[in-house]
Amino acid sequence: MSYIPEPIEKLVRELNGLPGLGVKTAYRIAFYIADSADIKADNFSVALKQVKERIKICKTCFGYSLDDDCRICSDISRDKKSLCVVERPQDIFVMERGGFKGSYHVLHGVISPLDGVGPSDIKLKELFERLDSCEVTELVIALNPSVEGDATTMYIAKHIAGRDIRVSRLARGVPAGASIDYIDDTTLCRAIEERQDVSC
Amino acid sequence: MSYIPEPIEKLVRELNGLPGLGVKTAYRIAFYIADSADIKADNFSVALKQVKERIKICKTCFGYSLDDDCRICSDISRDKKSLCVVERPQDIFVMERGGFKGSYHVLHGVISPLDGVGPSDIKLKELFERLDSCEVTELVIALNPSVEGDATTMYIAKHIAGRDIRVSRLARGVPAGASIDYIDDTTLCRAIEERQDVSC
Repeated sequence: MSYIPEPIEKLVRELNGLPGLGVKTAYRIAFYIADSADIKADNFSVALKQVKERIKICKTCFGYSLDDDCRICSDISRDKKSLCVVERPQDIFVMERGGFKGSYHVLHGVISPLDGVGPSDIKLKELFERLDSCEVTELVIALNPSVEGDATTMYIAKHIAGRDIRVSRLARGVPAGASIDYIDDTTLCRAIEERQDVSC
Repeated sequence: MSYIPEPIEKLVRELNGLPGLGVKTAYRIAFYIADSADIKADNFSVALKQVKERIKICKTCFGYSLDDDCRICSDISRDKKSLCVVERPQDIFVMERGGFKGSYHVLHGVISPLDGVGPSDIKLKELFERLDSCEVTELVIALNPSVEGDATTMYIAKHIAGRDIRVSRLARGVPAGASIDYIDDTTLCRAIEERQDVSC
């Protein structure tokens, strides 16, 4: 029999379902909420509600937006000829940190036969229609380096082969600051295969 | 200029204030909420609200409760002669994991002159009143092993010195499974000072 009050256990169950949150942190947070002023829980509820009520999907890139068109798609200073393909809306902001200056297209998934996700289940048709209707000269495919990510990258590359569009994907290798002692074998093999010439 | 929609940034700010949650996890959770069904955010809001609305402070031990008296205080099978003093309500559930079978008293803080917390700012008066009115024979002080925790432990011990109550605190030393190579010096010094005889 647990002596922990049910509302705290319930909040822990909700918290424990969130990505990156283990059960210990969930308990710490639930007790913190129980201990804090009412305004804290209220602000939290309002913030949660607004995320669900105000966030839309941009009808051009399928990223998150407050309007029909997101701020990147409606920003005339962005390079419209360079299009970056990502899996999830949040990957856009990762690419922004990397300094990408073009436009985006969110697939909302990757091809994964094992999970029953085929090409028609993600925004690939919309990507190809977009490539037909605008002047994209480079497609940067920034999917995760997994079997599914690679399969989706190849699917896109094959589909637009022969067109005057440069297709690239993110470089793979040893991350900055890493010690090669601790790098996994797959990364190390790729870093060796795709080794780069050093000119001096 | 950040392209991340404001409601997501707002939720990140709320999440980032929680204990044990860094900014990266806060972003992962905020995007997860944006991506999940409405019901997820609703359940979350309800769970948060219920914690604030339904949780009370037990009028005997000052722990969390759904009623005036908590389930531990109203459980007649618990040992009422053994009283454990803890700093925060959540510490009760930590002690439960450790197998403590007695009753509790939550101080809601420790004496900390640097933070302006004196003996009258925490539930010490209530503790001493409780010791006067019931038959406690052992007081287990389970405060964190910090300067403030130790000062509070000494304050309590001095206050009830001369009474027929055994006062103890949690044993200190090397935690189970730890490698002594990695133990901090304070813990190691204490473990040596308070070394225990091995009988065979």
